[in-house]
Amino acid sequence: MPSPNAYPIDPGGETGFTVEAARMKFGPGMLAELGDDARSLGITRVALFTDPNVAATEPFAAALASLKGAGLEVVLYDGCRVEPTSASFLDAAAFAREAGVDGYVSIGGGSVIDTAKAANLYATHPADFLAYVNKPLGEGIPVPGPVRPHIACPTTCGTGSETTGVAIFDHVEKQVKTGISSRHLRPSLAVVDPRTLDSLPPGVIAATGFDVLTHAIESHTARPYRSRPRPESSALRPPYQGANPWSDIGSLQAIRLGGSYLVRAVADRDDQEARDALMFAATLAGLAFGNAGVHIPHAMSYSVAGMNHSFVATGYEKAEPMVPHGISVVLNAPAAFRFTGPAAPQAHLRAAEALGADTRGAVAEDGGRLLADRLIEMMRATGVPNGLSALGYGEADIPGLVRGASAQQRLLTIAPCAVGDDDLRRLYADAMRYW
Amino acid sequence: MPSPNAYPIDPGGETGFTVEAARMKFGPGMLAELGDDARSLGITRVALFTDPNVAATEPFAAALASLKGAGLEVVLYDGCRVEPTSASFLDAAAFAREAGVDGYVSIGGGSVIDTAKAANLYATHPADFLAYVNKPLGEGIPVPGPVRPHIACPTTCGTGSETTGVAIFDHVEKQVKTGISSRHLRPSLAVVDPRTLDSLPPGVIAATGFDVLTHAIESHTARPYRSRPRPESSALRPPYQGANPWSDIGSLQAIRLGGSYLVRAVADRDDQEARDALMFAATLAGLAFGNAGVHIPHAMSYSVAGMNHSFVATGYEKAEPMVPHGISVVLNAPAAFRFTGPAAPQAHLRAAEALGADTRGAVAEDGGRLLADRLIEMMRATGVPNGLSALGYGEADIPGLVRGASAQQRLLTIAPCAVGDDDLRRLYADAMRYW
Repeated sequence: MPSPNAYPIDPGGETGFTVEAARMKFGPGMLAELGDDARSLGITRVALFTDPNVAATEPFAAALASLKGAGLEVVLYDGCRVEPTSASFLDAAAFAREAGVDGYVSIGGGSVIDTAKAANLYATHPADFLAYVNKPLGEGIPVPGPVRPHIACPTTCGTGSETTGVAIFDHVEKQVKTGISSRHLRPSLAVVDPRTLDSLPPGVIAATGFDVLTHAIESHTARPYRSRPRPESSALRPPYQGANPWSDIGSLQAIRLGGSYLVRAVADRDDQEARDALMFAATLAGLAFGNAGVHIPHAMSYSVAGMNHSFVATGYEKAEPMVPHGISVVLNAPAAFRFTGPAAPQAHLRAAEALGADTRGAVAEDGGRLLADRLIEMMRATGVPNGLSALGYGEADIPGLVRGASAQQRLLTIAPCAVGDDDLRRLYADAMRYW
Repeated sequence: MPSPNAYPIDPGGETGFTVEAARMKFGPGMLAELGDDARSLGITRVALFTDPNVAATEPFAAALASLKGAGLEVVLYDGCRVEPTSASFLDAAAFAREAGVDGYVSIGGGSVIDTAKAANLYATHPADFLAYVNKPLGEGIPVPGPVRPHIACPTTCGTGSETTGVAIFDHVEKQVKTGISSRHLRPSLAVVDPRTLDSLPPGVIAATGFDVLTHAIESHTARPYRSRPRPESSALRPPYQGANPWSDIGSLQAIRLGGSYLVRAVADRDDQEARDALMFAATLAGLAFGNAGVHIPHAMSYSVAGMNHSFVATGYEKAEPMVPHGISVVLNAPAAFRFTGPAAPQAHLRAAEALGADTRGAVAEDGGRLLADRLIEMMRATGVPNGLSALGYGEADIPGLVRGASAQQRLLTIAPCAVGDDDLRRLYADAMRYW
């Protein structure tokens, strides 16, 4: 099991790791306590951010009733876009400023939570929009101080925004995703109520569940934190630090939960035990393993999603055609773990065992293959497409896919081994078809 | 393994649990980065709290050099008492006010860290001393707002104060320990550098290590959070919530680390791997399992320490005679776990296995006994006294010991079964001698 020194010391290598603060409440029905939570943070007039789909659900109604029951004035903003843009962030900030609120509650996916973060920031510390946006697109000026209290309530098991200080948006003119990062943007409290998953179709549970599960496996198999060079100063330590004794505990538990409950949660929409467990696995990402980072499957996913605007995934029939994030990630995962297995055999074998693979008689060298086989078994059992070819990709698309992945050096450096363009070509070829 | 629903639903019972925020950095040598950390929190003139023993160590020298090297003005306060009092808290606050600092660093045990918290509070929000002290001794007035940044650096593996918002002191006139509790008192950052353990004698490592280890086992075997009544409002949820899916992950890992490394860390003061692992186990208390709570061994410890002022423990020869906290706790532990085993057999068996007991062929009902036997084996291997009789206690002391334990209802309610005075009598009798 991971102790601080299960990581061999690397001369000149990193010696420490950090854990960021996140305050959280977890449990079915917790949205019905939101009024108390908002009052304890000193909020009297609250901006409630959501989107029209979430606004129609029972947990949302319970949250709204709780806020009003506690005597708070509630101003509703239900115009959050699925993929926020600079324009939609500005619109939300103008709303918040005019509404004169002293606190925020966001109930929704990452887009809703991020929109509330941005509205809170620009209403509290007005500035030109690009002022706080990350360089090089923005000016990267540090957020000058605390913002208003914000309670973030995720309604999918894929986000994680509820415990981070990051807000992501599409810069439409530049056709690129970027964001705003500041410790001050981290929500004051995350309220995670797994009953918000009840209304999600099985296909959405599969896509978001595989996103969390793959994230956990990537964190567990990431390069060891001690293999990174020691930073020159504390402030230069990156948010993605590689596998470490803290992340290992959470990632392994999230893999166990995914291995036990993901197939069940997709197969039976009334299996609340399974959906609760998946939601808790997602929560572990924010609390315990998000600091390790993700690597090849996520790096490969950007071009898989970006080059395909015609795929309609199960469960997403009402949305515009697109490859859901979790699907674009998990389709690369078996190929990636076969490739990374030899570089971190023990970590891959531990992950395979936690996921439910039969590891009797296995040696560490089998880890990558066993892990890939068990993932493929779960993908088949949940109706996930059979590799990238099922999305319409073929041999001819590989150069474009590789270009996109190769641009994600920030993630590729988290892999336990070096990954060149030739490797990426072979990985995409291997990911075309699994059974 | 603990999933949210491995806890059966109790009608009318609790449905949620909370995790408090704590920002942390862990690693050997991390004190040498303190200057960067202080600057990133905006500190320019810092009050450095410590005690004379710590001030003579190498890690302290590295910390001081780092603060000065980063251009900070440093004002030293090395008069922290081992058991702080209202008077020593006030003295520290007066110092901080006069020194005109804009931030705090504390390097030491819980007493040093707590003294810095109190100084920061009363220098930032001046008030009569009893204003913020917990009721009924104090007025319990809520701390009005944020205090100055504070970086807390523990130098023993027993405390935990580095991640809590509590400062404990002796109310001398009333002869009782009480404290000040507020979210605002939680340090801005905990910096945990296991090299601070290097100068500790083996007896101190044993006492503080067993404190952490027993704390972990108590958290893991505590009553399930769902067995508590549901609170009427969110604000009434207690800080000690009982065993829950978050605490279970951390407590089990801390038990594994203690089982693997405690004996080694005591036997060989140069075994840095073992001391690093113990320090990380202690850190897990603040990050992951402190929210479950402790029960019988801790409840029984107060009178064991309070009624004995003549014992001199190994490693504490230079201090006033007293029973070190960890010793007063672990001496009750085997008796307590034999008693609580039947109420939570699976949790006790998991703990026994994590601690390194041979559980082949065992059934859940063996859990309490196996756990006690393995603890006794470790106590013998580390030179811990053979039960309460080795401290000089006998049959005639049991009524007084029971009175003290019985007053700790706050902790006894965290046990997995009811604990009456008759039970406590039998438990103290059982704890007199183990081998």
